[in-house]
This record gives sequence, structure tokens and C-alpha cells, in this order.
Amino acid sequence: MKFILSIAALSAGSVAAFAPSAFMPKSLSVASSSSLNMALADGVKPIIIGVAADSGCGKSTFMRRLTNIFGGDVVGPLGGGHGTEGGWETNTLVSDLTTVICLDDYHINDRNGRKESGLTALNPIENNFDLMFEQIAALKNGDTIMKPIYNHANGTLDTPEKIEATPIIIFEGLHPMHDDRVRDLLDFTLYLDISDDVKLNWKVQRDMEERGHSLESIMASIEARKPDFDAFIDPQKKDSDMIIEVLPTALDKDDKKTLRVRCIQKEGVSDFSPCYLFDSGSTIEWSPAADKLSSPAPGMKLKYGTEDYMGKPSQVVEMDGNFDNLQELVYIESALSNTKTKYYGELTQAMLSLADAPGSNNGTGLMQTLAAFAIRDLYEKKSAIAAKALNEKAAAKA
Amino acid sequence: MKFILSIAALSAGSVAAFAPSAFMPKSLSVASSSSLNMALADGVKPIIIGVAADSGCGKSTFMRRLTNIFGGDVVGPLGGGHGTEGGWETNTLVSDLTTVICLDDYHINDRNGRKESGLTALNPIENNFDLMFEQIAALKNGDTIMKPIYNHANGTLDTPEKIEATPIIIFEGLHPMHDDRVRDLLDFTLYLDISDDVKLNWKVQRDMEERGHSLESIMASIEARKPDFDAFIDPQKKDSDMIIEVLPTALDKDDKKTLRVRCIQKEGVSDFSPCYLFDSGSTIEWSPAADKLSSPAPGMKLKYGTEDYMGKPSQVVEMDGNFDNLQELVYIESALSNTKTKYYGELTQAMLSLADAPGSNNGTGLMQTLAAFAIRDLYEKKSAIAAKALNEKAAAKA
Repeated sequence: MKFILSIAALSAGSVAAFAPSAFMPKSLSVASSSSLNMALADGVKPIIIGVAADSGCGKSTFMRRLTNIFGGDVVGPLGGGHGTEGGWETNTLVSDLTTVICLDDYHINDRNGRKESGLTALNPIENNFDLMFEQIAALKNGDTIMKPIYNHANGTLDTPEKIEATPIIIFEGLHPMHDDRVRDLLDFTLYLDISDDVKLNWKVQRDMEERGHSLESIMASIEARKPDFDAFIDPQKKDSDMIIEVLPTALDKDDKKTLRVRCIQKEGVSDFSPCYLFDSGSTIEWSPAADKLSSPAPGMKLKYGTEDYMGKPSQVVEMDGNFDNLQELVYIESALSNTKTKYYGELTQAMLSLADAPGSNNGTGLMQTLAAFAIRDLYEKKSAIAAKALNEKAAAKA
Repeated sequence: MKFILSIAALSAGSVAAFAPSAFMPKSLSVASSSSLNMALADGVKPIIIGVAADSGCGKSTFMRRLTNIFGGDVVGPLGGGHGTEGGWETNTLVSDLTTVICLDDYHINDRNGRKESGLTALNPIENNFDLMFEQIAALKNGDTIMKPIYNHANGTLDTPEKIEATPIIIFEGLHPMHDDRVRDLLDFTLYLDISDDVKLNWKVQRDMEERGHSLESIMASIEARKPDFDAFIDPQKKDSDMIIEVLPTALDKDDKKTLRVRCIQKEGVSDFSPCYLFDSGSTIEWSPAADKLSSPAPGMKLKYGTEDYMGKPSQVVEMDGNFDNLQELVYIESALSNTKTKYYGELTQAMLSLADAPGSNNGTGLMQTLAAFAIRDLYEKKSAIAAKALNEKAAAKA
């Protein structure tokens, strides 16, 4: 798991927006316990979200954004405290409403086993999709499961842990959309697509500039991993409902830090209508007025348009650049529609309340927050449908 | 006046948006008389508008758009009928509220005189700015003038005609902003800037394709006129409050007919705030949704942004392309702010009611209409100020 570890190290860098950095489970001062999990209302099934990301990176920040929007304020590793006391660790994060499960826990072999097989964890053969399917199906039905644990620290498979169904369950990892049976169980799918250029920029910044590694060794580690990544991970983009693409800025070709982030939203997804800028269905490029939004060089540009994404009609919102003052985001929020917020300014408020989280000054934080609102909206639509069915059932009995 | 005549011929072409074509004074079936002119209200001075255009082209269409918006429905040459009966012609158009005066009437020499002088009518020496200043000042004061007439048909100077002040007086021609004294009397100035490429395209279409002239002779006539044009006409752009720039489309370099029209609006003009697309002060490129606005190839693109125009801060709205269905303009209208309309849809209604006028399917008609609304707005602000002053005066007496 060398690459995952190096990415995890990377992700502590200031530019790694989807990285756990400021909110690694171990650094949590308030730990939750499973007793805090909100019980599922009668007749309401969990909503299951798949998040494909290039490693374990991103779950903490995204979880914080989700929890923040859902109103929960206690987030931490399952069975809080065990990680530092009991000698074993969990990859599972829980809050009042949400459980985030890392798909690394479904690795078939431990690190030694993969040394024998000669395969990377990116290879589907190294992952137990039968068990994954079975357990996601059980959770979706509201049942409790005993999920294996893959120990990232020492590369072993630890004693399974008990997972109870919460209203929202997020499966995050390398292959949430790889297996058709699993994918069919997912209510919404998100792919975090960090471009090769950005991965390289991040690695260079961290491993070369700060740690003195050679560019050759960095390139070699990326190249070694690329065939399996391209074969098994990347194709999942095609079937994702939303893809958050992180690219180098297009505003200055010499700028290696500023990010251009595209949120690709598929059309025709059940209970999901894409967010847009100014005017639905058109194509727009927008450089906000400098006196309303202050942004450091190379400036700020937003785009919106419809496009064919890998053969599927999609709507894309893009932000290129950083903002200096997060409060001014309300100006951009006022130009966005279908954000699934409940009141004017909620998007800005959500970003402001996590101003310290990685990516809060650029499009990664914005698009993660848009994804979080979309998931809340999906959950509420599903709950409303379930509640209506229950009422009708009760009325029929009375 | 060879060039002016050739332009006048040109302007009957379907693409010549500012051309009189469909609404030449002689083709009017309903002629007005000066008795139809609305009297100026007590204490209200006429508002004087300068329109610089590359010849007599454009006044009829623009006049129609203005009259249409002001509510007048009778437009025609001053002293209606004389043109066909009396053997002499007027260049002056009148409606209930508006008088359009052609500055060719201030030529010093007739055509024979210019043959002797060897100068073109573009040369300021060939124009009587002292008389122009004197007569504009008189009209602005509400007085009646006896204005000379330049007869375009035979190139002679005819018997002067009586002009009474109407609430809005437009001075249209080659040099409305050339003389500082005249320019200072103008309440709003508009420059219709047909680019060399478009002029050439129009001339080629008309004189070469339809009349068999050679490209060489067309180029020669343009080149011959260019030095004086560049020296005396073009510099007036710098001091205009609004410039309507007509360029070839930027959407297809082989397309010689579709127009890109930019409305450059200076900042800091008294009683005038620029129209903008979506968001004031920002920079936007917008391709409307195809299912909301149908446009023939090469499509439709709008832009908005701030820019430095010849050293002056300006805001620019641009339309590139034609629309198939004028009723769909309401979709674009809904994206424009500060149009100075009085109700939602008024801009579209104004364009629809003149659907047959040249340029009604593209940006020339749109920008002319925006200019007309801006002029109405200026007039109403001025009238309101005058009415307030009158009321205060009356109250002081009582």
C-alpha cells in the first residue's frame, strides 16, 4: 500500500483539498460512540452513496461537510477511543446521521498476501465484491453487519467491527462502482477525479520540494500504478452520477498550485437535478466583478455548460481560482441555481463554518458542498416518500 | 457624394441593418405634417441627441424604433407630400415627439462647389459648424429655426425649411461630435460604427455580386474615402456616450453575412447607467440554450464586460448571431438588466412590433432598441427634473 500511504502523506499539504489533513481521525478531540447514531425512522431505508476516490483521501473533509449540512456535530471513528487505546483501528467514521465505510476493508489479502499474489489493491481480484454486495444490501435493508477491517498501519486484516445502519451510508474507496451488483444498490455515485497533473504537482510539492525525493522516483511511483488505475478505477467515472474533476488552473500555465475544479452532473439521474450558473442549459463563462469578489492571481473564472461526458449528457459547473474572502462566496451563490439549499446564503454559511477545512478557498470545497446538498436533498426526498407510504398504510388500517 | 449614394444603394440590402431600405421616406404611405408635432411642455427643453453614422444610412430604422417606443405612430418627412409634389425634398423626419435632422443640410458647398474645392463632404471645411451650433442652440432653447436643405438627388442647396422644436431632436450625420461647441449641446451621443470588413462585405454583396462591379473598383472607392474618414469621422467615437459597433461574426470566419454587434456604453455619463448581462461589472460569455433560443448557423453568442475603450472606462454588451424567432428574444431580455424598459418584455415587444425592419433578427436591432430606451429614459429624467422645478416655482409663488 505504498501509494496510498504516500497519498495520505501528500494529503496533509495545504492544496490537497480532498485530503484528511486537518481532520484525521486520530486528531479528533471529541469522539463519538455508536450510541449516538440516530435510529432510522420506521419504514425509512438508508440512502447509500458511493464515493470513488483515488485512495482513502478525502473522506474526512467530505464527511465534515456532509455532517455540517445535516446538522450533526459529532463526528469520529467508530467505537471512539479504541484507535488510541485498544491497539487496533477502524476506518469507519460515524456521525449522528452518517456512516462512512472505507472499501479498503474489503481487501482479500493483507499486505503480505499481496506480496505473494503480486497484484496491487487496485486490482479487483484483490477485493471481495461478494461480501461487499452482501453487506451493502444488508445495510440498505436496515440490518447490522460485521464488517472486516483492513489495518492501514501494518497492512493486516483485523477483527471485524459491528456496523449499524444509519440514515446515510457512504461507501468510499477505490471500487464502489466496479461491481454491477454493488453499483445497483447505490442511490447516488460520486467520483473524485484528481487529474494526473495535479497529482504530480502535489507529489512534487511534497515529496520533492519538502522531502528531497527525486523527480524520477516520483514519476516512477506514479507510472507504476497507472496501468491498474486506468484499467480498474478510472472506468468508474462513466457510471458516476457526479464527477468532481480537479485540474490545474487554466488561467496561468505556470501556476502549479491553483486549481480548476469541474463538477460534472449527469442528466436523467433519479431525484437529482443539476446545479447551474445563471441559465439552465446554456453555456457560460463568467469572471466575477473584482469589486464583488477578491481573488489572488491568477484570478477567478467560472463556467457552466452542457456537454457529452463519456457518452452521457451532462451539465458542468466549473470554478477556476481561489477566493480571498470566503464571505464573498455569497455573490457566487446568488448566481447558482438548483444548489438544493433551503435558504439564500446556506451554501456560503456551510463553507464558512468549515473555513479551515482543506479546499474551502477554492472549487474543491464548493463542489464537495454542492455534492453534500445534493445528497441531503436525495435523502429528504426518499424520507418524504417513505413517510407518505407509512401514512397511507396507517390510514388504510384505521 | 458618390460614396454616400453607393452606401444608400447598399443599404437596401437585407443585411444592412442601419439602412433605410424598407422605410425610405418616399415609400411612406402615411405622411405627417408639422402640426402633428407635440408641443413642448412648459419649462421643458428639448433633449438633443447626436448620432454619428457613416452616411445618411440608418436614420429611418432608428427613427422607427424610437417613435415606436415613444408611442408615436406617425412618422414621415417634414411637410409631408412636398417631396413628391413640390419638386424639392427634405432630409428631415418628424413624428409626434421627435425630429431627425440630417447634418448634410449644413454642407457649405453644393456638389459643383465641392468639385471646385476638391474636398469631400467628410472634410469639416465643407460643413458650416457655426450655423449648426447656432441652430442647435436655438432648438435646444425651444426656438424655431430656418434650416438649409442639401438636396441629395441633384447635389444642390435648396430653399431652407422651418423646423420647430419637438421634445426630442436628433442630429444625425457625419460630424455631430466634431465641433466642441456643438458637442457640448448634445445630451447623449451615439456613434454607429460599421467596421471596414462589414462595409466591404455589404458592398461586395451588392455592387459585385448583384451589379457586376469589380472588386478592384469597390476597394478603390473605399480606399479613396478612407483618409478623410479616418481623419474626421472616426475620432468622434472617442467622445461618444454609446458606440454601436458592427463587425463580422466571430463564430465562423467564412461567414460574410452574420453580424457581431457590440454596444459600448461609457461609464460616468449623466443620467445614463449601462445595460448589462446577468451581473454588473463582471465579464461574461453566454451561448443561450438551443431549446430556448433558435438561431441559424453559426449560432448565437452574447458577451458582456467592462473594458477601456479609447481611454475611457466602458461596459460592453455584445450579440453575435441571428435569431430565428423574434419572440424568443424575451429569453435574452430576461438576462439583461438596466434596459430602461418599464415592464418585463417591453424590449421584445418593441422589436416584435418592428419585426420587418432591417436588423430586427440580430444585434443591430437589439442595440438600436436599447439605445432608444436609453434616450427615452434620459428624456423622462429631464422632463421630471423640469416638472419638479416648475412645481417648486409655482409653490413659491403661491
